[in-house]
Amino acid sequence: MTKVNQNFLKLPGSYLFSEIARRLAAYTAEHPEAKMIRLGIGDVTRPLAPAVIEAMHKAVDEMGTFEGFHGYGPEQGYDFLREAIAKTDYAARGVDIKPEEIFVSDGAKSDCGNIGDIFGTDNVVAVCDPVYPVYVDTNAMAGRAGDFREELGKWSKLVYMPCVEENGFTPEIPQEKVDMIYLCFPNNPTGTVATKEQLKAWVDYANENKAVILYDSAYEAFITQDDVPHTIYEIEGARTCAIEFRSFSKTAGFTGNRCAYTVVPMELERDGAKLNALWNRRQCTKFNGVPYVIQRGAAAVYTEEGQRQIKETIAYYQENARVIREGLTAAGLTCFGGVNAPYIWLKTPDGMGSWEFFDKLLKEANVVTTPGAGFGPSGEGYIRLTAFGDADATKEAVARIRTMLGR
Amino acid sequence: MTKVNQNFLKLPGSYLFSEIARRLAAYTAEHPEAKMIRLGIGDVTRPLAPAVIEAMHKAVDEMGTFEGFHGYGPEQGYDFLREAIAKTDYAARGVDIKPEEIFVSDGAKSDCGNIGDIFGTDNVVAVCDPVYPVYVDTNAMAGRAGDFREELGKWSKLVYMPCVEENGFTPEIPQEKVDMIYLCFPNNPTGTVATKEQLKAWVDYANENKAVILYDSAYEAFITQDDVPHTIYEIEGARTCAIEFRSFSKTAGFTGNRCAYTVVPMELERDGAKLNALWNRRQCTKFNGVPYVIQRGAAAVYTEEGQRQIKETIAYYQENARVIREGLTAAGLTCFGGVNAPYIWLKTPDGMGSWEFFDKLLKEANVVTTPGAGFGPSGEGYIRLTAFGDADATKEAVARIRTMLGR
Repeated sequence: MTKVNQNFLKLPGSYLFSEIARRLAAYTAEHPEAKMIRLGIGDVTRPLAPAVIEAMHKAVDEMGTFEGFHGYGPEQGYDFLREAIAKTDYAARGVDIKPEEIFVSDGAKSDCGNIGDIFGTDNVVAVCDPVYPVYVDTNAMAGRAGDFREELGKWSKLVYMPCVEENGFTPEIPQEKVDMIYLCFPNNPTGTVATKEQLKAWVDYANENKAVILYDSAYEAFITQDDVPHTIYEIEGARTCAIEFRSFSKTAGFTGNRCAYTVVPMELERDGAKLNALWNRRQCTKFNGVPYVIQRGAAAVYTEEGQRQIKETIAYYQENARVIREGLTAAGLTCFGGVNAPYIWLKTPDGMGSWEFFDKLLKEANVVTTPGAGFGPSGEGYIRLTAFGDADATKEAVARIRTMLGR
Repeated sequence: MTKVNQNFLKLPGSYLFSEIARRLAAYTAEHPEAKMIRLGIGDVTRPLAPAVIEAMHKAVDEMGTFEGFHGYGPEQGYDFLREAIAKTDYAARGVDIKPEEIFVSDGAKSDCGNIGDIFGTDNVVAVCDPVYPVYVDTNAMAGRAGDFREELGKWSKLVYMPCVEENGFTPEIPQEKVDMIYLCFPNNPTGTVATKEQLKAWVDYANENKAVILYDSAYEAFITQDDVPHTIYEIEGARTCAIEFRSFSKTAGFTGNRCAYTVVPMELERDGAKLNALWNRRQCTKFNGVPYVIQRGAAAVYTEEGQRQIKETIAYYQENARVIREGLTAAGLTCFGGVNAPYIWLKTPDGMGSWEFFDKLLKEANVVTTPGAGFGPSGEGYIRLTAFGDADATKEAVARIRTMLGR
């Protein structure tokens, strides 16, 4: 008899965004006239850059000719893209990452999940709290999380590192020994960043304890302050302990284009094995590369025109973040993030619960947000607002929230 | 200390196609003047259909506008594509598959590998011998294959089902109980097919023993004979025991476009769980859908124009298969497959070994093939030829082989 993966059956049923969708649908069914503004889900809304569109058209044309047709590409991505990434995202910052350390993929979500394939199931996993749910759920599926404790909202075997106001939303190194450490800066959901010193402490810990840091820097393009690290490899020692995940999703509006990459340095060895070789084997066996047309689009991001165009779009979203952050702060609310990230982490007023304030905003301001509690127990008492909306709608949302609160 | 997945370390180093590439490179380095013809690797060579190109251009244009921009799509694929698949690939054959049973993905290779996520690691896995290496390697990575026995060329825990001349290259139901059964028809590498009666026996076995059939029908578009089943769901009872993998790669030349789909019927339950729900959870957690532009291209395959155009291309490859099959048969060689598949399974003359005959063809005819032994022990004594080349080059290759053999 076929046995299913029992770990799947331990996953709690209701997923954050489906619960939000359910509450939104229920409200709009009763109030079809309501003009809802969505500052909840983290999807981009601005079109692809003209340079990307042009490159994709050209690549589509190639695919229609004998001479230009591209069949199976390298599982790791085409050299033209890997080289552009190495040059612009790393060498230009003084960071030495070789093209063969870069694996192009269909998404940071896929990579963050699939990376678990190369690790044993008995590693101790540390995650921030609040956290992007994919890190937790994929480890639960693999059996590293143990059992879900409904009453605590936590998995039995995961080590949770609270990121709260008291520690500036930066995780502290846990007392117990941990093996796989998920870090995400600029952070989803809190929008906060880590300094070089803070990351250095993590790199030192990982090297001393032969742990691995799984570093998600999907939002690095939103960094505005000079001293904030864009990549973990700016930190000395990271090449022997860290894997980095990057994405074109937020950097270049590729959420519907599906392209990302993962960096696994050649020096990174654990348990006698080179992780670059293991990930290469994983990708060659269970993945067949990213569409040629999409990789050509991604490569156009690195042209002079492409860089200028994506920076305009990012500036547009950054301005939204400023509007939210400053508007709500002026109204006496406490906001974190939004300076180096497209996310604003808003403390609920008067100690309201996350879902309670979510419902209030939904019904009284017709603004859709994301309850912080959905990202983990330490997210209780917060909501997440995103800067990916239309500029006018964002201003209107802030005005409505202020009106609702009477300030 | 981080532990790696020890199963990765058990994988034998040299992969079939890299060994072929190595031998080819060594030969051409010594003979730079040689005009090599490649009938080895299974990649298509003809450009995408005009209808697909047109749809992709249109979709690229949409992605460049506010109104037409598509961000995150449904992880399972857009309805327009799932509905077109259900209608054309299934309903038109009298098979009832609902859109919600179809999961669009970036490749059958990915799905064949990732499907293992939803199953326990203690299932007994049965594979054909010879076999597409991905089924074996992904189970080895998950720990279901045991240890590799170099001297036998087999994994200790896998159940191998020989597909040889004596049984018409159709696997017999094994004596031992098995839980997960990989079947591929039209078959890669042998190019042979299974009859409805043969598949019925497998479906009955799977239902009686609560096993699951993982049915790869990536080559169904090449079927020419009326009574050959295109889908496992033509067989009564398959909805309660089978998952089917399909791909646009060979059907519509999408190897560089990356689009495929997997069917998991709603009735399919094992171990108290609906496999459709488990796969849905897997895809929603570790995958983020196929690019919008690619899905629009795939949907164009189902238009009247698209269907006509892809059939022309398939006919072109089928003619190549005929040329190889008939030409080599006329030369007194024994060929299998090539009637309902793009693969010809050629018995080596005079009992030569696979690699020996591969080397002879490489050096004396300058034709690159794939040694059957690379697909498993029962592939010894065969080579695989593919019909995806240029028509003139294919004719020339056959002529060269005949000249080489003096017949």
